[in-house]
Amino acid sequence: MASAKHALQLQAKDPNFEPRVRESFSRQVVMRTIGATMARVEPGVIEIRLPFSEALTQQNGFVHAGIITTIVDSACGYAALSLTPPDVDVLSVEFKINLMNPARGDEFVAEGHVLKAGKSLTFCEGKVVALADGRPPKMIAAMLATIMSRAI
Amino acid sequence: MASAKHALQLQAKDPNFEPRVRESFSRQVVMRTIGATMARVEPGVIEIRLPFSEALTQQNGFVHAGIITTIVDSACGYAALSLTPPDVDVLSVEFKINLMNPARGDEFVAEGHVLKAGKSLTFCEGKVVALADGRPPKMIAAMLATIMSRAI
Amino acid sequence: MASAKHALQLQAKDPNFEPRVRESFSRQVVMRTIGATMARVEPGVIEIRLPFSEALTQQNGFVHAGIITTIVDSACGYAALSLTPPDVDVLSVEFKINLMNPARGDEFVAEGHVLKAGKSLTFCEGKVVALADGRPPKMIAAMLATIMSRAI
Amino acid sequence: MASAKHALQLQAKDPNFEPRVRESFSRQVVMRTIGATMARVEPGVIEIRLPFSEALTQQNGFVHAGIITTIVDSACGYAALSLTPPDVDVLSVEFKINLMNPARGDEFVAEGHVLKAGKSLTFCEGKVVALADGRPPKMIAAMLATIMSRAI
Repeated sequence: MASAKHALQLQAKDPNFEPRVRESFSRQVVMRTIGATMARVEPGVIEIRLPFSEALTQQNGFVHAGIITTIVDSACGYAALSLTPPDVDVLSVEFKINLMNPARGDEFVAEGHVLKAGKSLTFCEGKVVALADGRPPKMIAAMLATIMSRAI
Repeated sequence: MASAKHALQLQAKDPNFEPRVRESFSRQVVMRTIGATMARVEPGVIEIRLPFSEALTQQNGFVHAGIITTIVDSACGYAALSLTPPDVDVLSVEFKINLMNPARGDEFVAEGHVLKAGKSLTFCEGKVVALADGRPPKMIAAMLATIMSRAI
Repeated sequence: MASAKHALQLQAKDPNFEPRVRESFSRQVVMRTIGATMARVEPGVIEIRLPFSEALTQQNGFVHAGIITTIVDSACGYAALSLTPPDVDVLSVEFKINLMNPARGDEFVAEGHVLKAGKSLTFCEGKVVALADGRPPKMIAAMLATIMSRAI
Repeated sequence: MASAKHALQLQAKDPNFEPRVRESFSRQVVMRTIGATMARVEPGVIEIRLPFSEALTQQNGFVHAGIITTIVDSACGYAALSLTPPDVDVLSVEFKINLMNPARGDEFVAEGHVLKAGKSLTFCEGKVVALADGRPPKMIAAMLATIMSRAI
């Protein structure tokens, strides 16, 4: 499938994509509420990090699947936004997530990357990895998402 | 499809399903963090309610899709748990959500109900409705989820 | 959730939606290949029927999940098309399907219905029921789908 | 995310996985009906190829999304089967597919690969690429799937 990967051509149309993406992220109040931060910002690729917090747990002490979804959905949405022209905003149309392992660990790293950037719809793939002292990183979730662009 | 609906037969195996479900929900710390409460508990049907809070918003002031996902995922998971024997816990394997309208409103009502309760896997459907003063209720999201049972 | 259902208001914009939908379906060569026919056509609701055929089976003699998907995807797509203006075509953007029971039976009935018809995107829900002599109808699959409209 | 990839460790438990997978595929009558063949078989990775045929088309002459789904669902299912012990069969529990580009081309190549192989559930990712004379390969679909193992 190497050839398909070569066809991706993730190029930013807006040279100022990084401050634009970071500014929008800073307006997602929910990210401060849960303690998530935006790490890597590249054309079509976004990384969001979330430290473990008991405030985010479900009945067994793992981070709730919906919170893991929150960070990887934003990673996918901002991966899409990084490739749009400046006067465009994005909205998640839908996503699906597989929860492969319980969200247990010290920190969770969500990466979203663009599979195809279309005029009105962008398709993204997301992964979430759990990090914990003394253990190898573990993939805990995989997402496929559809993001809609709209003029601001 | 009326006949298919009749075939559902949602019957609790555990007469104490309601306190068991409510007790587990009370251990989901994330629900207190976001302000969600469990409303209706019936065999195979759960309702969770979330008042709007700015702390949960994304860049446009709507509640983040991941938070809407959090309440409807729990509604689906507890709908599954309401039909299990007492010594079983549940875990979301995966879900998919369509975000049909922005999560704008005073309160959000997530309903999860069981489509099929199997021995190891339960399939659920979820809907989220937004309520706002002076407007008709609006469906904002639809979910399909797969829940796994496991012995405690 | 009754109020949400009332809000759906599935009304055809094109009085000729039925012949238009049936004409498009008649151009889906794959439907003749697998033996599927369009049954009910109502505004926002479509039923497609498929008799069992050994030619469509997987390794255990059940109809392949992809074939069940084929009929319920078309049911969802045509449910969307039934609500569009005359000069519009539709295309599936994505769908998710839960396969709740093996596709075993004499006939399979797929129903697609519209949850929300938007300008560019329509969201649909699908169900597939298996019919067999002497057994109650059994729901075997549930779908959530996103359909895109585009000018012809 | 390199570390996560290293953690995958796709190793066949059954040294005879290849003939076992190919024998099961040969019993999927639907594959002969649509003209699909199994190409590459590796531990956790399967490739299925489908030449274009008018018999498989939808209203615009593209291959129907359900047929594309059929080959990538089987690619994912057999990727899961390649990693199971000999006395196990697999069944798709659910999948979600994004249809990124119309299925236009001379041949379609579906690749399924395992993200996590668990005792009862295996999670797979699938991609479909369209090949056409004189054009670069184009990714047309991406899938996430959940596969269940069961003793034969």
